[in-house]
Amino acid sequence: MGNTSDLDRFFAPHSVAVVGATVRREKGGYNLVANLLESFSGPVYPVNPNYQEILGVRCYSSVSEIPEPPELAVVFVPARAVPGVLEDCGRAGVKAVVVESGGFAEVGPEGRRLEETCLEVARRFGIRVWGPNCTGLVNTDPFIFTPFMRAPNVHRRLEPGSLGIIAQSGMLAAGFMMQYVVSGFFKVSKACAIGNKMDIDEVEVLQYLEDDPKTRSVVAYLESVERGRDFLEVARKMRGRKPLVVLKGGRHPEAAKAALSHTASLAGSDEVVDGALKQAGVIRVHDFHDLMNLGKAFSVHPEPFRLTSPGGNGVALITVTGGGGVVATDLARDAGLDLARLERATLERLAAIFPEWMPPSNPVDIWPTVERRGLEAFAETLQVVLADERVDGVILLTFASRALEAFPFQRIGELARKSGKALLSWVFGDVRFFGEYEARMREHSIPVYTDLRSCVLALRAYLQFSREARSAAGGGPEA
Amino acid sequence: MGNTSDLDRFFAPHSVAVVGATVRREKGGYNLVANLLESFSGPVYPVNPNYQEILGVRCYSSVSEIPEPPELAVVFVPARAVPGVLEDCGRAGVKAVVVESGGFAEVGPEGRRLEETCLEVARRFGIRVWGPNCTGLVNTDPFIFTPFMRAPNVHRRLEPGSLGIIAQSGMLAAGFMMQYVVSGFFKVSKACAIGNKMDIDEVEVLQYLEDDPKTRSVVAYLESVERGRDFLEVARKMRGRKPLVVLKGGRHPEAAKAALSHTASLAGSDEVVDGALKQAGVIRVHDFHDLMNLGKAFSVHPEPFRLTSPGGNGVALITVTGGGGVVATDLARDAGLDLARLERATLERLAAIFPEWMPPSNPVDIWPTVERRGLEAFAETLQVVLADERVDGVILLTFASRALEAFPFQRIGELARKSGKALLSWVFGDVRFFGEYEARMREHSIPVYTDLRSCVLALRAYLQFSREARSAAGGGPEA
Repeated sequence: MGNTSDLDRFFAPHSVAVVGATVRREKGGYNLVANLLESFSGPVYPVNPNYQEILGVRCYSSVSEIPEPPELAVVFVPARAVPGVLEDCGRAGVKAVVVESGGFAEVGPEGRRLEETCLEVARRFGIRVWGPNCTGLVNTDPFIFTPFMRAPNVHRRLEPGSLGIIAQSGMLAAGFMMQYVVSGFFKVSKACAIGNKMDIDEVEVLQYLEDDPKTRSVVAYLESVERGRDFLEVARKMRGRKPLVVLKGGRHPEAAKAALSHTASLAGSDEVVDGALKQAGVIRVHDFHDLMNLGKAFSVHPEPFRLTSPGGNGVALITVTGGGGVVATDLARDAGLDLARLERATLERLAAIFPEWMPPSNPVDIWPTVERRGLEAFAETLQVVLADERVDGVILLTFASRALEAFPFQRIGELARKSGKALLSWVFGDVRFFGEYEARMREHSIPVYTDLRSCVLALRAYLQFSREARSAAGGGPEA
Repeated sequence: MGNTSDLDRFFAPHSVAVVGATVRREKGGYNLVANLLESFSGPVYPVNPNYQEILGVRCYSSVSEIPEPPELAVVFVPARAVPGVLEDCGRAGVKAVVVESGGFAEVGPEGRRLEETCLEVARRFGIRVWGPNCTGLVNTDPFIFTPFMRAPNVHRRLEPGSLGIIAQSGMLAAGFMMQYVVSGFFKVSKACAIGNKMDIDEVEVLQYLEDDPKTRSVVAYLESVERGRDFLEVARKMRGRKPLVVLKGGRHPEAAKAALSHTASLAGSDEVVDGALKQAGVIRVHDFHDLMNLGKAFSVHPEPFRLTSPGGNGVALITVTGGGGVVATDLARDAGLDLARLERATLERLAAIFPEWMPPSNPVDIWPTVERRGLEAFAETLQVVLADERVDGVILLTFASRALEAFPFQRIGELARKSGKALLSWVFGDVRFFGEYEARMREHSIPVYTDLRSCVLALRAYLQFSREARSAAGGGPEA
């Protein structure tokens, strides 16, 4: 294992060679060059003995032929050619290589032997290897994008953010996560598909993200963790500072068996894994959907929230639908959240804006108030509820329609910021207005969900992280 | 309570009066007239003393002034005016009235008294009342659409289907479900928002759908069930014939309390409710998202599937992503599904198409085979797996990309049909290709989900219903 700064060559290289570059469109070796020429600020060196030039740029017959050794080489050639490429890189003085080609351990014993050969060459030259069987990595600042799928103008589309993503597994699952990244579902700092992790593994990448000031939270999809102790050590360092969300399958024996045959590595007893992850403060989820949704939550709001007490777990629901409030209450209790018993002063203040016939309680059903006072009632009610010293987090249940033009986004955003408390929203109703509602709320660091269960899980994750941050800070009262 | 055929006047009236009709666009009373004139085949009579004509149609000053009594009246006037309207309807001989206006029991004691007055008038004239505080109903064949939201050309957009929907609760939650209906998320036979159920309640509507040959399955969002015994009796009649999916909140004490304050009706101990629903064969869910997704499943495929045994619960996963297979296995076990131990003959047949180094197992990881044989490998593998007498249902985990142009939709559809077994799909990857994939699969009655957990829950619901159908048929082997 090298030291962490080895990874700087991958995330912030001065120059990149693409081995396996080609002029044939729709091929990965073409996409790599096209993406890099468009989005990477340093020199890009296509390498392929069959071409003089690719996309107007000189093409070299080998890495050693490049006048100045590139800091990073991205390799996309048939598996059997990879050891030779590594030799070439080694002779040229390249110290960082991403091998994206498949055909290694994931295709059986022969591929595994090929990996061993590659590793032997890499060690001989002191090369760090990323992959194989992966789509590489993305860094939004400075910008580099190594997936071999064509993504025109990707540097303009990918706004820098604070979420780090680690995906193990082959190209498909990782490609899926990359798709979320490119679609703008969340704003990332760095996204990593580590593949077969022949050399660089999830622990080393996680340590790098732990150190990275631009990464404020991390979601990871893992299939096996060989260096469990080291992984937990990094997780513990992140605890209360950078939220870490993990999807790791193999909880049931049948799934563990499938994981074993798929990754050819011991998955470990899940009970032990689960206990250890909990102790290290890791937030564990069980579905890709949940992983993406918590990634969204922490990408929208990576800081811990102010809690009313060290165990702060009190939730208020402000809802335009009584029935939605009931269902949300059930889901919140399922998730182990407490429905806050509102303070007397809160109830009195709510009574002053509620219709007379309606005694306020939690969930706070505000539809009759909205009918009387308009959508400003959302802000008025929220202000009262956020001031309650039993409330740690609030979910707004909002009906989407054209009427949202008059929704008090600005005031709600300010109230949330000033209170320092967690605020999220579930939206239902007319789907044509979902996108606008979500975008406006996101401007104020408020995540929006269209399924209630995800919204509740995100609030739970926010509060868990905030409790850990508070406990790490000494548990005292906050300013 | 009247008899079931009373509801024919609501679902298939010959003529409709709209009381509270107006020329002011964006008002509910305008939308009702506009929607009905466009989509309803019989006469539409606007009623409002202030207008001579609305949208080119003669407007009447009262219902009694209409020369032939309309079979149905839809009422959207301020709550306090509703008793007078009911008197007018009664004098005119109208026997069916949908009251959409809010301002009744849901706004406190005064509104509750108003409801009692309305009921007294209705009983005096033998009028059946739907609502108040609701958006009414939709029937796709013959077509009628009474929600007061404007839905241009709704009769062209709403293709007839076999799913029945019942939503209690006020206008918001019901409006949400109507939005799903209008968006084409599922194809419905009848959709009902029953509101405060002053007279007609969920039991009467459910009984009507139980009798309705066009309705093959029902999803219901309920807040309270006063006539629990009657409800369960209808549910038991549906068991094994028409799947019934229910979302009923109030499982936790805090939620039950919220339900109580919201609906002003006793919700009942949830343990008793839950046990009784299970015994009656009802499929219970806990989130709107799940209710909609199971509605989709039964709308796409309402018939029971062929099982390999009376307890048929064996699942096979065919996946292009090993990691996805592991996560799906965990979710299937969470849901109580069994991973089928494939028969020896199946494993041998799979081995013949798999690469040599890859011993087949369940989950069936087909990516290496797809790489060698192309997307036809999906059909080849599916054929082998469906023939296995331990497999009752299959989930395909598919990566969406441009390559799906070559996906063997037709052959997969035929295989599923011939086998009579449950087939569903989870799709991930490039979101731009999700819509096309889902539409093509739906043509073959295969539902597609973008979150794995929903896909697994849908398979569980399919198998539960199929077991009940088989047990109702006597439990013997099927043809």
